[in-house]
Amino acid sequence: MTPNFRPVALEHASRLVNHGPTVLVTSAAGDRRNVMAAAWSMPVEFTPPRIAVVIDKHTFTRELVIASGAFGICIPGTVLAGLTYAVGSESGRSVDKFAVHGIVARPGPVLGVPLIEAGCAAWLECRLIREAHTEDAYDTCFAEVVAAAADERIFANGRWTFGDDNVELQTIHHLGAGNFVRPGGVLRTKPMPASPARDTAGES
Amino acid sequence: MTPNFRPVALEHASRLVNHGPTVLVTSAAGDRRNVMAAAWSMPVEFTPPRIAVVIDKHTFTRELVIASGAFGICIPGTVLAGLTYAVGSESGRSVDKFAVHGIVARPGPVLGVPLIEAGCAAWLECRLIREAHTEDAYDTCFAEVVAAAADERIFANGRWTFGDDNVELQTIHHLGAGNFVRPGGVLRTKPMPASPARDTAGES
Repeated sequence: MTPNFRPVALEHASRLVNHGPTVLVTSAAGDRRNVMAAAWSMPVEFTPPRIAVVIDKHTFTRELVIASGAFGICIPGTVLAGLTYAVGSESGRSVDKFAVHGIVARPGPVLGVPLIEAGCAAWLECRLIREAHTEDAYDTCFAEVVAAAADERIFANGRWTFGDDNVELQTIHHLGAGNFVRPGGVLRTKPMPASPARDTAGES
Repeated sequence: MTPNFRPVALEHASRLVNHGPTVLVTSAAGDRRNVMAAAWSMPVEFTPPRIAVVIDKHTFTRELVIASGAFGICIPGTVLAGLTYAVGSESGRSVDKFAVHGIVARPGPVLGVPLIEAGCAAWLECRLIREAHTEDAYDTCFAEVVAAAADERIFANGRWTFGDDNVELQTIHHLGAGNFVRPGGVLRTKPMPASPARDTAGES
């Protein structure tokens, strides 16, 4: 891992994507690899940690993910906003986007998925859960998170911290047409007595 | 509609949730109604506009959604952060949360779903697409968006605008434990020549 990356406990993995960042989906099969951008992902379960992400059936990424049964979710910081839009607008069938853009990847600890750390706030290594109908009808791929890590300068002890000293690592959220918004002020609501079983959605 | 709310073209509906805001899920069946918070939702298709949202099978909302085949996605502004956390931490089985919190709802134009405008930036009225397996295995509910509207002070012509003059309407993104982050600066990346077929994820 790069110097500031630390493992994230799996029970905290959902917090990495809970606030809706745009992510990079990484994948590899045989001697091919790819990275694409995805604005459409969400956690679906805390324990075991599971997520859903929309990967269009026409993409090269989808082909690699089905072939390997695995993918990475890397969370780019503001410093990678331009790259994120770029890799979302070109196909990995004809070029190795890692090589073209000089992206360094390291193999994930459990599945060997290519993961990006430089310029990213965090990553999740994911094992695809095959759901043929949902993949076909909604391009929605479910997966279990098997490992996660984050740059401790922005995510530590299960919590994000956004400040003037970590702007380059702050998450980006795609508004459309290449415009992203980054986090602003934090709002702390009065703590409620109940402990929600499912994030904000407990026994609602 | 309240004075500043305007219909949103259905092809722009996905943009309302593209950047990952925490939402309020509204529902009604017979003479019962409810509202809960959900941090876990995402678009899955532009046309027809479809979304996915995680609604725990033990919630009263899930019961109402299955009974009625419909729900609303209302996007609270910062002014409703405390309310959002509150309705995510209490059950609607025993109380009418609209009454308890003085929330005014209006019926959606297509399905009559209770929708919240005061303090919200936008809403989407949704028709559930029954997917028994996905609902059971992942608590993930798919739906088609049949109508949408937004406060023109923050979303107009398919675009969000965040500024000092609309802080109260700005979206909130749950970090966990009642802490939300609101949008900060906007990053504009260099436009790419390709027109991505699926948001940032074109032929990737």
